[in-house]
Amino acid sequence: MADLHIQINRDKGGIAGQIASELRDSIRGGRLAPGTRLPATRDLATDLQVSRGVVVEAYEQLVAEGFLVSRVGVGTQVAPKTTPRAAPRQKPSPRPKPVRRASSAPVCAPPYYGHRPTSPDLSHFPRERWLAAVRHVLTTVPSEAFDYGDPGGVPELREELAGYLRRVRAADVRPENLVIVGGVAQGLSLVLHVLSRQRPLRLAVEDPTSQRQVPLLRRAGAHLVPVPVDEEGLDVRKLSGDAVLVTPAHQYPTGVVLSPPRRAALMEWAYAGNRVILEDDYDAEFRFDRDPVGCLQGLAPGRVVLSGSVSKALAPGLRLGWVAAPPDLAEAVRRARGELDLGSPVIEQYALAHFLRTGGYDKHLRRMRREYRRRRDALVRALAQELPEARVRGIEAGLHVYLELPDGWDELVTAHVAQEVGLSTEPVAPMRESAGAAAVVVGFSRLPAHKALDAIRGLKVRMSGQNVD
Amino acid sequence: MADLHIQINRDKGGIAGQIASELRDSIRGGRLAPGTRLPATRDLATDLQVSRGVVVEAYEQLVAEGFLVSRVGVGTQVAPKTTPRAAPRQKPSPRPKPVRRASSAPVCAPPYYGHRPTSPDLSHFPRERWLAAVRHVLTTVPSEAFDYGDPGGVPELREELAGYLRRVRAADVRPENLVIVGGVAQGLSLVLHVLSRQRPLRLAVEDPTSQRQVPLLRRAGAHLVPVPVDEEGLDVRKLSGDAVLVTPAHQYPTGVVLSPPRRAALMEWAYAGNRVILEDDYDAEFRFDRDPVGCLQGLAPGRVVLSGSVSKALAPGLRLGWVAAPPDLAEAVRRARGELDLGSPVIEQYALAHFLRTGGYDKHLRRMRREYRRRRDALVRALAQELPEARVRGIEAGLHVYLELPDGWDELVTAHVAQEVGLSTEPVAPMRESAGAAAVVVGFSRLPAHKALDAIRGLKVRMSGQNVD
Repeated sequence: MADLHIQINRDKGGIAGQIASELRDSIRGGRLAPGTRLPATRDLATDLQVSRGVVVEAYEQLVAEGFLVSRVGVGTQVAPKTTPRAAPRQKPSPRPKPVRRASSAPVCAPPYYGHRPTSPDLSHFPRERWLAAVRHVLTTVPSEAFDYGDPGGVPELREELAGYLRRVRAADVRPENLVIVGGVAQGLSLVLHVLSRQRPLRLAVEDPTSQRQVPLLRRAGAHLVPVPVDEEGLDVRKLSGDAVLVTPAHQYPTGVVLSPPRRAALMEWAYAGNRVILEDDYDAEFRFDRDPVGCLQGLAPGRVVLSGSVSKALAPGLRLGWVAAPPDLAEAVRRARGELDLGSPVIEQYALAHFLRTGGYDKHLRRMRREYRRRRDALVRALAQELPEARVRGIEAGLHVYLELPDGWDELVTAHVAQEVGLSTEPVAPMRESAGAAAVVVGFSRLPAHKALDAIRGLKVRMSGQNVD
Repeated sequence: MADLHIQINRDKGGIAGQIASELRDSIRGGRLAPGTRLPATRDLATDLQVSRGVVVEAYEQLVAEGFLVSRVGVGTQVAPKTTPRAAPRQKPSPRPKPVRRASSAPVCAPPYYGHRPTSPDLSHFPRERWLAAVRHVLTTVPSEAFDYGDPGGVPELREELAGYLRRVRAADVRPENLVIVGGVAQGLSLVLHVLSRQRPLRLAVEDPTSQRQVPLLRRAGAHLVPVPVDEEGLDVRKLSGDAVLVTPAHQYPTGVVLSPPRRAALMEWAYAGNRVILEDDYDAEFRFDRDPVGCLQGLAPGRVVLSGSVSKALAPGLRLGWVAAPPDLAEAVRRARGELDLGSPVIEQYALAHFLRTGGYDKHLRRMRREYRRRRDALVRALAQELPEARVRGIEAGLHVYLELPDGWDELVTAHVAQEVGLSTEPVAPMRESAGAAAVVVGFSRLPAHKALDAIRGLKVRMSGQNVD
């Protein structure tokens, strides 16, 4: 049984988070060895003089993140370590032929820019506070700051971001692991460019997945291998390839959160074959019903490349994101950027650093999380009331719901009609390799709460009309 | 003899420019056919009621740009047209083995970011006016502007830039030819990426050339073929490859301006083999002693890809530039960007559009051109006075001089000592494939006029000491 030294600062609040954070650090630092049994929640709660629910919450958080495992009759233990084996590097595994997307291309290829169902509500972009941040930069940075910058990003921003990702995403990053990029798309392009220069790269992708990404992944040199997603997320047993691209926090489009056993299995897969996990930390900031699950990167910083951006939190038009990678890979990505485009514009990097440092980013996120939660609740209520025969999934996080359609509803017709009544919608069929129930993605970020019911009623009425035709 | 209908607006000033512009349009529009003889300058001056010098200036400008040719005993004629021949596309020409850089890598590889001798004086970055432009954007653009933007660039900026490039660079561009990119480096990366996907690409590069670019060109998929530069610029007779990268306005590092016969020969080469000219419009905005020579692109918009940026005019840290390409290639580049990084940040694109529209850009350039000219004059005077045995070249334009060193001066030692006395200097040897006289590049953008003499004296004194050692 572990002897735990947990420091709690009762003035700070978030006690469960503090406990989780201390435990996480102990596991990472090796002070809690793999297999170590943790005290029963009741005992630890007594020790720490907190309610038992607080300890349960902390344990659950770490189970969700994969640091702990919990088994009936055994209690809670530190997860078995999945360190890299001394396997020969780059040993080729038997390669199943990469599955290609059928030539039956998506029926309605979406444009690769402009509005998406998952875009944030840009009428809430904090124009004044962003301007204040730019003003701060333009009146304070030295002239040299306007020169050719480090292609890995402005040091001030990497410092702030590393702190932010450690705190909010339980990531295990230092500034030197970070490369600032022009969004998740560029982050993926660069990482795949680097990896596929080393060897031909078979990249496992979730099925269904964002079809907008497919041309990007191919252009960057990857051969795609679709792997099905079920109720627990990516089906790790069916995984093959040299690397995998996953959205564990909120799978796109299904909204599934990767289950703890799957997280553990995924780690094992990566370590066993010296493989790389590309974690798209998609929608992680908008988790509504509980604390966000820490990112995979925090669990295995040597195997996981974390990509994120401010596209959901602030605006896609800022084109600001990051890649957190093991040091060698981070350096290769930074060097690639230095030889491709010399890095991101500096003024907005400094502005984001200022926005993070002064708490403006957190404040904006809190405000938007409240507002999006209201909009989500209204949409989910309206769907339950008006379309009980539809199945609503993936509502724990993000800016869209995944809606499995009532019998007889066609995806394309539904998406078209939904657009007409003001719902930002896309059919799921073009995102799939394998067959699945008819479904659409419905974004709610720009759907005010008071309009949800009317919109869903409108959809229902028009779809009934369609069915009568 | 041509019958010229030239409209002059005497209220506007710049009569020579007006005449040149009318003639250029007539040649482009086919109203003046290839080979047509132009009136003698004296006759046209009489017709137009202007001084003869004005007509001479207009003719010289167009000869420099390649629209006209002037021969003793023949007079001035419209240049022979070099239209694409019906040559088979992608016909492989005999391929000399691409010359590789010797493994004897540059002795002192410069870092790929930070200060360069050719960087502008960033203490003059117009902070307040740039902030005003950002404020204008943040208080006026609609919310949708912050969404995923057109990867080809914000339409307002493409519109303004097309007008600017037509006016200032005599370019032949419309907004749909333009793709906004993160600087010349990204522009080249993207164009080469697109071209080298179509076929293996042998790219002729000037020798000497910027050694910073070499890894970029290679990474983008090009096989480099060095071609010597002499007193007239790139030696077109020695050209081979599928495409060529040139800096006709001010060759880097020698500062040579491509001569009119070479411009014509270069066009012919491009049309004859369906080849592409990549024109890096380097330093074009800082031409001190006469009007800037129009860009090659204006002469052959179907064969030339023009790249430029605000790195010299404003600041490298803005990472804002453009590519002007024939429509098909422009669309391919735009699409590539949509599949690599989804385009440049939008707020600064709108800000630059505003800055161009309101005349802030022109005003800043005029002010800086005056200041840089003062600094150049001071440096050139100091060199003439203190180091008459050194040969100073390439002073017509740009932010550096090319200094052929006195006998016995070593490039590396000189560059090192020059840095110590405050001169921003780089040796030329790492930029060369073939042998050449010892030389260094000396930047003057950050060397105040009153400090030039002391700096050169310091260099002379210390180098004498070095020689004594």
